[in-house]
Amino acid sequence: MTSENPLLQLREIMQQNNVSAVIIPGTDPHGSEYIADYWQEMNYISGFTGEAGTVVITSEHAALWTDSRYFLQAPPQIEPRGIELMREGVASTPTIAEWLSAVLDEGSIVSINPELFSVNSYMVLNDTLTTNGLILKTNGDYVGDVWTDRPALPNNMVFQMPRTIDGRTPGDKLKMVREEMEKAGIEAWLATSLDDIAWLCNLRGSDIAYNPVFMSYAIIEKEKATLFVDGSKVSDITAASIGRQGIAIKEYNDIRSSIAALDTRLGMDFSKANYSLYQAAQANCGAKHTPSPVTLMKAIKNNIELSGMRKAMIRDGVAMVKFLFWLEQQMQSSEITELDVVKRLHEFRAEQDCFVGESFATIAAYGPHAAIVHYEPTAETNIPLQPRGYLLLDSGGQYLDGTTDITRTIPLGPVSGESRMSYTMVFKGMVALANAKFPHGTRGAQLDVLARQYLWQHNKNYGHGTGHGVGHFLNVHEGPQSIRMQENPVILEPGMIMSDEPGYYQENSYGIRIENLISVASGREKNSTKFLHFDTLTLCPIDLKTLIRQYITPDEVEWINSYHQMVYKRLAPMLDKEHQKWLMRKCAKYV
Amino acid sequence: MTSENPLLQLREIMQQNNVSAVIIPGTDPHGSEYIADYWQEMNYISGFTGEAGTVVITSEHAALWTDSRYFLQAPPQIEPRGIELMREGVASTPTIAEWLSAVLDEGSIVSINPELFSVNSYMVLNDTLTTNGLILKTNGDYVGDVWTDRPALPNNMVFQMPRTIDGRTPGDKLKMVREEMEKAGIEAWLATSLDDIAWLCNLRGSDIAYNPVFMSYAIIEKEKATLFVDGSKVSDITAASIGRQGIAIKEYNDIRSSIAALDTRLGMDFSKANYSLYQAAQANCGAKHTPSPVTLMKAIKNNIELSGMRKAMIRDGVAMVKFLFWLEQQMQSSEITELDVVKRLHEFRAEQDCFVGESFATIAAYGPHAAIVHYEPTAETNIPLQPRGYLLLDSGGQYLDGTTDITRTIPLGPVSGESRMSYTMVFKGMVALANAKFPHGTRGAQLDVLARQYLWQHNKNYGHGTGHGVGHFLNVHEGPQSIRMQENPVILEPGMIMSDEPGYYQENSYGIRIENLISVASGREKNSTKFLHFDTLTLCPIDLKTLIRQYITPDEVEWINSYHQMVYKRLAPMLDKEHQKWLMRKCAKYV
Repeated sequence: MTSENPLLQLREIMQQNNVSAVIIPGTDPHGSEYIADYWQEMNYISGFTGEAGTVVITSEHAALWTDSRYFLQAPPQIEPRGIELMREGVASTPTIAEWLSAVLDEGSIVSINPELFSVNSYMVLNDTLTTNGLILKTNGDYVGDVWTDRPALPNNMVFQMPRTIDGRTPGDKLKMVREEMEKAGIEAWLATSLDDIAWLCNLRGSDIAYNPVFMSYAIIEKEKATLFVDGSKVSDITAASIGRQGIAIKEYNDIRSSIAALDTRLGMDFSKANYSLYQAAQANCGAKHTPSPVTLMKAIKNNIELSGMRKAMIRDGVAMVKFLFWLEQQMQSSEITELDVVKRLHEFRAEQDCFVGESFATIAAYGPHAAIVHYEPTAETNIPLQPRGYLLLDSGGQYLDGTTDITRTIPLGPVSGESRMSYTMVFKGMVALANAKFPHGTRGAQLDVLARQYLWQHNKNYGHGTGHGVGHFLNVHEGPQSIRMQENPVILEPGMIMSDEPGYYQENSYGIRIENLISVASGREKNSTKFLHFDTLTLCPIDLKTLIRQYITPDEVEWINSYHQMVYKRLAPMLDKEHQKWLMRKCAKYV
Repeated sequence: MTSENPLLQLREIMQQNNVSAVIIPGTDPHGSEYIADYWQEMNYISGFTGEAGTVVITSEHAALWTDSRYFLQAPPQIEPRGIELMREGVASTPTIAEWLSAVLDEGSIVSINPELFSVNSYMVLNDTLTTNGLILKTNGDYVGDVWTDRPALPNNMVFQMPRTIDGRTPGDKLKMVREEMEKAGIEAWLATSLDDIAWLCNLRGSDIAYNPVFMSYAIIEKEKATLFVDGSKVSDITAASIGRQGIAIKEYNDIRSSIAALDTRLGMDFSKANYSLYQAAQANCGAKHTPSPVTLMKAIKNNIELSGMRKAMIRDGVAMVKFLFWLEQQMQSSEITELDVVKRLHEFRAEQDCFVGESFATIAAYGPHAAIVHYEPTAETNIPLQPRGYLLLDSGGQYLDGTTDITRTIPLGPVSGESRMSYTMVFKGMVALANAKFPHGTRGAQLDVLARQYLWQHNKNYGHGTGHGVGHFLNVHEGPQSIRMQENPVILEPGMIMSDEPGYYQENSYGIRIENLISVASGREKNSTKFLHFDTLTLCPIDLKTLIRQYITPDEVEWINSYHQMVYKRLAPMLDKEHQKWLMRKCAKYV
């Protein structure tokens, strides 16, 4: 049973410990995008259910910092507990340090749980609090102390990726990591990102929504490797199998004592590793900032991984085609809502071989809802689809052999001329990026404009990136590469998988996004320059009804027809006659 | 009279001073792109006449480091003096520090002239020499000591820009600089870049080829400003005029004693200010790295400067049209060479009002010569033009009201199909960049791909940037903005002038480049985003004969016709009937 207002108990403990404030961020010890229930401390204390926020509690005050997505949602959730909303991004909003220095006496003690702050974010917080005359301590998990009905740490079984799916053994991967460790001049390296560890050990789990990972750490040394994971989650067969690859297993909670016992300086990524791990290392041989050598290795898929992704794309395409066919029929006969769309699309995916679950929460946004960033329908927001305007549908699946992410914007009937123009420019940008050819050494930021150029010609733009990396049956958002306006020094390498998803959002009116996944491929070499291009992976027809024909160039017509030919060729054999006929119509030659 | 081999005397002085090596770079104390004769120490000592190189002399060895442009030219120039060529960019070439540590005993003294090294380059050199067991000293100008017939420091008169040409008084500009100094937290700032100083004082000179600047420094303090320039170069009227703007004059060589006498820490740009100035500051109140506040101000032209540039473009366009007409006639009647082109083009420019000189050495490169980077014809390389292939002509003028830079690639008769394809892709890239529209906040590196995309589709690229900034009757290469593959955090601002000059170079065969100058302009604001675009400034027809029609889109046809209409409209009134007729033909509607 949840206590009505846990702030009272928290404040008692703070007083007992002479602590004037605690800062509770909405993060987990691994810097994960999605957080297991066990780590929802910010949510537990504040009542706020948004995905990003930090709550600060003093003996007399309490405030939540969050961004504009939640300015409407947050107040009714937090005000009953006496928590004030601090609007991030608004000029008059104080920083946490400024606010604390205003409400606390100089020399007051502020405490955090060091597991919930990266080394770098701890350093920054410590600097700013010190500048404001306050003292930062890492007293531990006060929220845990008052959270009597705290959910257990996720405890789902870990399972092995078949070697044929991944192509490389953990032993092969450890060898690659040790080579990078030698270059970096370290003899031990700490892995803290859950997807890095899953990739390295060829293991997957289900501790976190959407991301097939499991709570763990790993330490790689020159001669040995240790995976820190609850023993009860690993079968004897799995333990023996990875043991043969040179990976021993210790308990998840042994990580700090094991770090403290090392006889060498420990490499860890200060922007990701949590501060409690740094403290453990500092207690003995110390820590050295070392970016994860796994991140780039994981991003560059080998042929077996790429071939798995292509197979997953066929199943995902079949599910999408069946859904789109169903949607077209429903729109003629019965009333359906955004939530019906989410449910039915899930059912079509669930029929597919190797389907594990969604790769993120489905965005089914009708009409003006599509202009709301990160909109996902809930019982409160759910609306019926009307036979007009656009439905924006952004979804993806986790399959044992790959991860998908696809957006289609579907006209449900007549649409405004202005929105057709936007649809056309978004489409042209998506194709321009997919068609790009570029010399090896090119960064994503150089290519981003290809997707934006036509929107820009119409004084339009979109506020998100154009492309993110995608994991192989792993996180749907994966680094280190990106295609966006901001500079990112990572160059695009053959084998990387990216999304290609320009969009346009007209507030209170409509939203458009078209997304395929693409992979970087090598072309021929000329004058010792290797040119690269993209192969499109996603298999699903794109609606052409609302393209404005006069803006479509011959090159674009060629792209459309060759793409739809490929879609038909790969999906038709998996479909019954009725769906084949429908798909043939959707893939008919564009002239 | 030049001594036959000045190395002998230099080595004598080195021995007297117990110095084992001297390092002599091809730079001046201001980091200038073009160097006055007085500062050609590297050239004097080595005999090497290239524009980039560093010579190192020890008692027994001597070597010149330079890049691949000069691998053929350098050896015959330097070998008679016993100087060895070190090929920069070749993996087996040692660095200067590595080479010195191999030929010298540990603890040997290496000396430099601190006026010829920026603070940062001194720091790097000092670090690497120390690591290699050598000692760096700044003993002074040994080359000057042996250079008996050294040319005088340039001593041309300084002249004032009419206020109507520039639009702002030096007093206005000092106010802007002082505001930036306050933001940077400094009470005194040292200007060392000659174009920064010329812009700030509304003065110009002719001490250096192509750049209308004069040898000088300036110190701006809160209440006063001092220009360090030889008094004999400044007329009483000019001195009185800038005195009224709050700028006092001291001798050029007083800079170090004046720095040493300051009672506050001196801001200077460590990447540009020479080390002798840093030493002078360190002797008293010290120096603080402060990027030049003038660089960005100077790059953003106001309406009066832009209007001057447009007037200069008309005169430059008239000269180009007369030249192109002349060239067409000559090709039918008599044999002309690359040097004839340079000479005749100069004469046409020299006929124009307000012409001061070239803005850089004209590149007239016929056939395979155009594929040589930085080629400029000399008596040795000069070749006659044939009625086939392309002539690449890159040139520009300094006018009292503006600076121009234009490249046209002119087919002199039949050209190969492959080179036509390159010409077409270069042209399309030039137009795509000129047509770009982009939100305020965009960096040049984001737009660069627009100029390269069509070449990339054909596995082609070019090894130089796409666009550089251009001064207003100042340096033809001006920072801080650029359009190139490499990241540069400077955003494009309305009023900036850039070149738009993609190219393609096929070794031993041909070279193509098409260049217009463009300026950044404001468009309408939408959803609080301000969109910018480019206005084309250069006025000269572009040859369409060798464009491959099928690759030219309707948008590009529209660009061509509206550009040629503007060219005709602005230039025709300045031409006689014969030239008007020719221009009308060149600007005829492209269909």
